[in-house]
Amino acid sequence: MAKIKVAILGATGMVGQRFIEALIDHPFFEVGALVASAKREGGKYVETDRWRLETPLPENIGEMKLVAPDAEKVVSSGVRIAFSALPSDVATELETDLAKSGVAVFSNTASHRMDSEVPLIVPEVNYETIDMIVGKKGYIVTNANCSTTGLVLPLKVVQPLGIKRVFVATYQAISGAGYPGVPSLDILANVIPYIGKEEEKMQIESKKILGVYDSSARTVRDADFEVHASCVRIPAVDGHLEAVEVEVEKPRSEKEVVELFESFESPDVVKGLPTAPVKPVIYRHEPDRPQHRYDVNAGEPAKSAWGMAVSVGRVRVIENYIRFVVISHNTRRGAAPGSVLNAELAHKKGYL
Amino acid sequence: MAKIKVAILGATGMVGQRFIEALIDHPFFEVGALVASAKREGGKYVETDRWRLETPLPENIGEMKLVAPDAEKVVSSGVRIAFSALPSDVATELETDLAKSGVAVFSNTASHRMDSEVPLIVPEVNYETIDMIVGKKGYIVTNANCSTTGLVLPLKVVQPLGIKRVFVATYQAISGAGYPGVPSLDILANVIPYIGKEEEKMQIESKKILGVYDSSARTVRDADFEVHASCVRIPAVDGHLEAVEVEVEKPRSEKEVVELFESFESPDVVKGLPTAPVKPVIYRHEPDRPQHRYDVNAGEPAKSAWGMAVSVGRVRVIENYIRFVVISHNTRRGAAPGSVLNAELAHKKGYL
Amino acid sequence: MAKIKVAILGATGMVGQRFIEALIDHPFFEVGALVASAKREGGKYVETDRWRLETPLPENIGEMKLVAPDAEKVVSSGVRIAFSALPSDVATELETDLAKSGVAVFSNTASHRMDSEVPLIVPEVNYETIDMIVGKKGYIVTNANCSTTGLVLPLKVVQPLGIKRVFVATYQAISGAGYPGVPSLDILANVIPYIGKEEEKMQIESKKILGVYDSSARTVRDADFEVHASCVRIPAVDGHLEAVEVEVEKPRSEKEVVELFESFESPDVVKGLPTAPVKPVIYRHEPDRPQHRYDVNAGEPAKSAWGMAVSVGRVRVIENYIRFVVISHNTRRGAAPGSVLNAELAHKKGYL
Amino acid sequence: MAKIKVAILGATGMVGQRFIEALIDHPFFEVGALVASAKREGGKYVETDRWRLETPLPENIGEMKLVAPDAEKVVSSGVRIAFSALPSDVATELETDLAKSGVAVFSNTASHRMDSEVPLIVPEVNYETIDMIVGKKGYIVTNANCSTTGLVLPLKVVQPLGIKRVFVATYQAISGAGYPGVPSLDILANVIPYIGKEEEKMQIESKKILGVYDSSARTVRDADFEVHASCVRIPAVDGHLEAVEVEVEKPRSEKEVVELFESFESPDVVKGLPTAPVKPVIYRHEPDRPQHRYDVNAGEPAKSAWGMAVSVGRVRVIENYIRFVVISHNTRRGAAPGSVLNAELAHKKGYL
Repeated sequence: MAKIKVAILGATGMVGQRFIEALIDHPFFEVGALVASAKREGGKYVETDRWRLETPLPENIGEMKLVAPDAEKVVSSGVRIAFSALPSDVATELETDLAKSGVAVFSNTASHRMDSEVPLIVPEVNYETIDMIVGKKGYIVTNANCSTTGLVLPLKVVQPLGIKRVFVATYQAISGAGYPGVPSLDILANVIPYIGKEEEKMQIESKKILGVYDSSARTVRDADFEVHASCVRIPAVDGHLEAVEVEVEKPRSEKEVVELFESFESPDVVKGLPTAPVKPVIYRHEPDRPQHRYDVNAGEPAKSAWGMAVSVGRVRVIENYIRFVVISHNTRRGAAPGSVLNAELAHKKGYL
Repeated sequence: MAKIKVAILGATGMVGQRFIEALIDHPFFEVGALVASAKREGGKYVETDRWRLETPLPENIGEMKLVAPDAEKVVSSGVRIAFSALPSDVATELETDLAKSGVAVFSNTASHRMDSEVPLIVPEVNYETIDMIVGKKGYIVTNANCSTTGLVLPLKVVQPLGIKRVFVATYQAISGAGYPGVPSLDILANVIPYIGKEEEKMQIESKKILGVYDSSARTVRDADFEVHASCVRIPAVDGHLEAVEVEVEKPRSEKEVVELFESFESPDVVKGLPTAPVKPVIYRHEPDRPQHRYDVNAGEPAKSAWGMAVSVGRVRVIENYIRFVVISHNTRRGAAPGSVLNAELAHKKGYL
Repeated sequence: MAKIKVAILGATGMVGQRFIEALIDHPFFEVGALVASAKREGGKYVETDRWRLETPLPENIGEMKLVAPDAEKVVSSGVRIAFSALPSDVATELETDLAKSGVAVFSNTASHRMDSEVPLIVPEVNYETIDMIVGKKGYIVTNANCSTTGLVLPLKVVQPLGIKRVFVATYQAISGAGYPGVPSLDILANVIPYIGKEEEKMQIESKKILGVYDSSARTVRDADFEVHASCVRIPAVDGHLEAVEVEVEKPRSEKEVVELFESFESPDVVKGLPTAPVKPVIYRHEPDRPQHRYDVNAGEPAKSAWGMAVSVGRVRVIENYIRFVVISHNTRRGAAPGSVLNAELAHKKGYL
Repeated sequence: MAKIKVAILGATGMVGQRFIEALIDHPFFEVGALVASAKREGGKYVETDRWRLETPLPENIGEMKLVAPDAEKVVSSGVRIAFSALPSDVATELETDLAKSGVAVFSNTASHRMDSEVPLIVPEVNYETIDMIVGKKGYIVTNANCSTTGLVLPLKVVQPLGIKRVFVATYQAISGAGYPGVPSLDILANVIPYIGKEEEKMQIESKKILGVYDSSARTVRDADFEVHASCVRIPAVDGHLEAVEVEVEKPRSEKEVVELFESFESPDVVKGLPTAPVKPVIYRHEPDRPQHRYDVNAGEPAKSAWGMAVSVGRVRVIENYIRFVVISHNTRRGAAPGSVLNAELAHKKGYL
C-alpha cells in the first residue's frame, strides 16, 4: 500500500530532526515535504548544515529541497499530514491555514494546545480525545510540552487515588532549548533555575490531558488539581527528569503504589502502533534510578519505540503524599515521535 | 593576644581542606594539629597528596605531621578546640572522648547532631542554643548537614508566616560526596536522583534547628512541620541549589515575601564575627538566578566570608504556597567555615 | 552448528561489560563463564551491581554464577576461548596458565602485548601476524591499547609515504579508566594532562603493530619511527580523539592524503567478519569533525560493528608534515569488540 | 595624581567584561567610556544584561551610559587610552581612526597585530618592541591571541636552545568563543577539533613575538621556526591548556629544562607593574599538573595579577625533542589584563 505523504514544518530544528529520524522506514508515512524558513526556500536540506543527531541524516532527505512556510506551497506538495515543529509565532497561523486546507496537522508546538476544539493527546493517557476530530478532513491535533508529557504518564497511573495537588521540580536537558539554544557558558558545571513559560505549560496542559472527556459534547473539562512546578535546566543532552510529589485523597502503601506503576498498561487501541512502546511506564527498583545515562532511550521492542517509554523510580510515601522520580526523552517521547504516535492513532481510527 | 590552638579531625578530606582554608590568617584560631587516619600517622600533610582546592595549600600546613585519631594524642597536642570533619563511624566515639577530655568540639559530622544535649547551630537561625553548653569545658557543638543549612536560612525568614509543610528538591554538587566521591562515569552529562540518608537528614535536622528553644531547661522542642525532600546529585563542583515550596498558614503576596528576604538581618551577636557575612541571605531579582556559576561564593566583605551567604530568588506565590530557589556553598556555608562560625560565636560568648 | 563457549576474564569491569555486549547474539561464540575476583566467586553477575552500559544487561548473563580467576576452574567450565579484560597484575599469570592448558586467550590486557611470541593485532593493519600462533592449541593473542588502536589505523593508511616520526596529543574519554575510575572532582569542567603508562604504550605498541612481519620466522621487526605522545583525559564518556602530526619521507598534497584515507579498505580475510565494519576508516569532510558526539559509534552495517570504525578528518599538509584528527571508540574498537574481532579472524583462519 | 581616563571598546563582550574587572581599583587608569554597538548607544551598561563573570559588576560601571563605536564620540569622552575588545570587522577602522586622533589604543583584537608598524607585545617576552611607538601620541599596541600568549611564554624560556619547530595541540576553554559563543549541544561531554583561524594565528603571531627586534629601524624580523598547531575546544570554562613539543638545536636534559623554567624571571621594566605577576612562568612538579581546576588563576601577589602567570609541567625530553604542558588564562593573561599590562608598560616608559 502506498505510504501517506507528510510534511515536516520546521524541519531544520532539533524537533524537526527528530521527526525525520522517527519517520525513517515508517510503515505508514513518508516524508513528502520539508518546510523551513522562507529564506532557505529551494536550498537542499543537507546544505543547512544543522543536523545534530547521532543517527546519520538519510541521504535522500538531505537531497530534498526546502519549502517555504506557506500553506499553499505545502498543500501543493501533495501531503495529507503536516507534522509541526515550528516556533510558536509562525505556527499559529500556518497550522490554522493548513487545517482549513484539509491537511491533518499533528503539532508539537504550543500555539493551539489549549484551544477548546483541539485535542491535546498523550495516547496512553487520553486517547479518547482523538474523537474530537471525527468528521473533519483538516484539523489540528497537538501533543504536550516535553516536561508535561513526562509528568502526565505517571500521574495517569496514580489518578485513581484522587490527585489533590502536585509539586514537581524538573531536571531538563539542553536539547529542549533547540539549537544553538543554551550557551555553554550558562550551563557547563551549572544549572539554570528558570525556563520561560515552562512552569505555566506544565500547570495548564496537565489539567487538560488528565481532565474528563465528554464524548457526546466532544469537549474536555479540566482536572481540578493544581500543578506547582519549578523548572530547571541541567547539563545533560537529552531527557527530562522530574522529582514529583503528589498529594492524594486515598493513600496507599509504597508497595501498592509500585504495583500500580508495574501493572499499568497501554490501552488496546494504542498497543501495537509502530511508535508505541510495549510498556509505556517502566518501574526501576534500583535505589538510584532512573537516570539520563541509562533510561532516557527506554522503549521496546523496535528502534522506533526507543525513547518512548518513561521510567519511574524511588516511590516514597508519607501519609497521603507520594513522591517519585520520572524521566522521559524530551525530543522523542516529549516531541516528534510523540506526535507521530498521535498520527498513528488517527490512522488506526480511520481518521486519515 | 595568643591565638587558640585547634585540631582538625579528618584533615585530608574535602571538608578538612575547607577547614584549613577557613583558618588561614584567622584572627582567633590557629591550626595546632591535623588528624587523619592512623595509617597516615607521622607523615607530612603535603605527602598525602589529597589537596583539591584552588586556594594553594599553605606551606606551613603542608609540613605539619599528621596525628592519629586518638583522643589522648589529640589532647596532648595542646589544642582547646577540635573541628571535626570525620566520617560518622569514627566520629561518634572520638568526639565524645575529646569532649570528656575538656576539648570544645565543633563538628560537621552527623553523629551527634540529634543528641538532645548537643546544640545544632546555624547562628543566624538559632544562635541562642549555644547556651546549651554553658558551664561545660568540654562539649560538642554541631552544624547542620550541607543541604539542611541552605534550607533553614530561608525557612527562618518565612517562619513568621507559619510553616505547615515543606517540599524541597535539591541540585547538589559533587564536592558534597568528598574525594574520590562520585565517579565521573556516574555524573558526567547525567544526574543521580539519590543521595543516601540525605532526605532523612533534611527532615529531622530542619525541625530541630527551627524548633523552640527553652532557655531555662536548655532543651529544644522540634518544629512541627514536615520536610519532604527529593535529593539529586548534579554535575556542578560546589554549591547546593534547592527548589523549595513552603505551605504557610498566613499567605503573603510575592512582593511581601521578597521584602521579608531583603530585610532579614543577622542577630547582633553574630554580626561582625570574622566568618559571618554582612548579609546572610541575599535576594536576587534576575529571573534566572541564583546559579552555581555566580552565586555560590557570595558573602561580604572579607575573603573569610566568601561562600557564607545564601542566595534566594524566584519567589512565586499561589494561595498559601510559596515557591523559591536557594543556593548555598556546601563545603563553605554548609560545612567547614559554618563550623568555624559556631566556634566564633562560642568565643564571643566567652565559652572558650 | 554449536557455538564456541568462551570465558570472559574480568567480567565485571567496563571492558568486561563491553565483551558481554559484543557477544550478545554472536554467530560463533557464546558466553560460557564469567570470571571475576575470587571474593565474588559463586555470586550472580547481576548482584555485583556493576553494569554501567546503556545496553541492558541480558537476563541470562545476569543469572550466571561468577567463577574465580583460577585456570583450573576456568578450564573446567568447558570454554575454548578466554577473552581477557583483567587488570595487568592478575592477567600475567592467569593468561599464561590458560594458554598452557590449551585455551585460546584473546586479551585486551597489556601484560603480554610485547612478548615476542605473542601477536599484537589490529586486523586491518597486521592480520598476517595471526599466523604466529599456527599449530598451537593454547595461545595468547592480544589487541592494542585503546589509544594505540585509534592511532595505528590511520598510520597504516599513510605508511606508504614513509613515516619518519609521529607526534600525537590525545583527548581521552573517562570510560578508559574503568569504574569507578576518574573521580568527578578531577574531570568536571577540567582536563587531566597525564595518564599513567599511556604514552609509553602508544610508543612501543605502534612500532610493533606497524612493524615488518617475517612470515617464515614468524617474528615481527619493529617499525623504526618514533611516536611522541602527550596523553590527556577529557570529560567525554566514550571515545579517544587524537590530534596527530606525521613527518613523512614522501610528501603528498592534502587532496592526495584525503584520497588515501578514502580509498583504504579492509583486507579480504577481515571483510565480512561479524564484528568488522565495512569501512574501517571513515573520512569526514566537515571542517569540525570527527567529534565524540557524532562519530564515536561509527561502523556499519550491523549493530555488532558499531563503534568499530575510526573516523578521520581535518587533513592539513605543510611540506612533509601531515596533520589530521582521528577518533575511535575506546571500549569498542579499542577494547572488547576489538578483541572479539581477533578471535573471529582466528576462527576464519581455522585456528580455533 | 589623577588617573588616566580610558575607553573600553566592545565593553559588553566577554573580553570587555574582563577589561572592566581588570580596571577595578586600578592605580593608573579609570574607566571613562564604555563603547558598544551603535544600537545600544545611550543605554545603561547594566541594562544590556550581559555580565557573565563571578566578580560582581561594579555599580558605578553598571550605571554608565554606552557610547557608540564612533571615533569622534570616543575622543570627545576625554579618554587618553582605548582598550579594544572589538570584533575584528569593526576594530580595523575604529582603532586606526582613534590612533590618528591621538588616542593610545591597546588592542586585544587581531586586526592590526601583524601590521609592520604595530608592536605585538607579551611584555615578559618582547617588552623592547614597545619602543616602536616612541614619539607618537596616537598609536596601536596589540597583545597576542589567547592561545599564542600561552605558547610564547614557555617558548621564550627554551628559545636559547634554538627552536627548530613547534607542534602544539590545544585544549581551549569555551569562554574563548565569547558569549553566547559555543552552543552547549556542541560541547557538553564532547570536544570540537576546530577553531576558525586559531591555528594560523598561533603560527604567525608566535614568529613575530619571538622574532628579532632591530631597535634602530624599529622593526621586527620574524623568528624562523614553524608552529604547527591543532586547536581543539574542550568543555572547561576558562583556560587554554596546550600540549607542546619543541624540536631544538641544542638538547638539554629534563632536569636542565626544568631549571630553565624555574629560573625564568620577568625583565626589570615589567617587574612591579600592577598587573604583572611576580613569576610569569610557574613550574609544577606534580605528575598531573597543570590543570584548569587549580592553575588557571595562578598569579601573585595581588588580585590584579590573578590569572596572569602561566603554569608549565610534565617536561619530557627525547633526544632533541622537548615536550611539556602549559596552561594560561585565556581571558585574563591572554586577553584583557594582558592588554592592560601593555598599557602599564607604556605608562612606565613615559609613552602615555
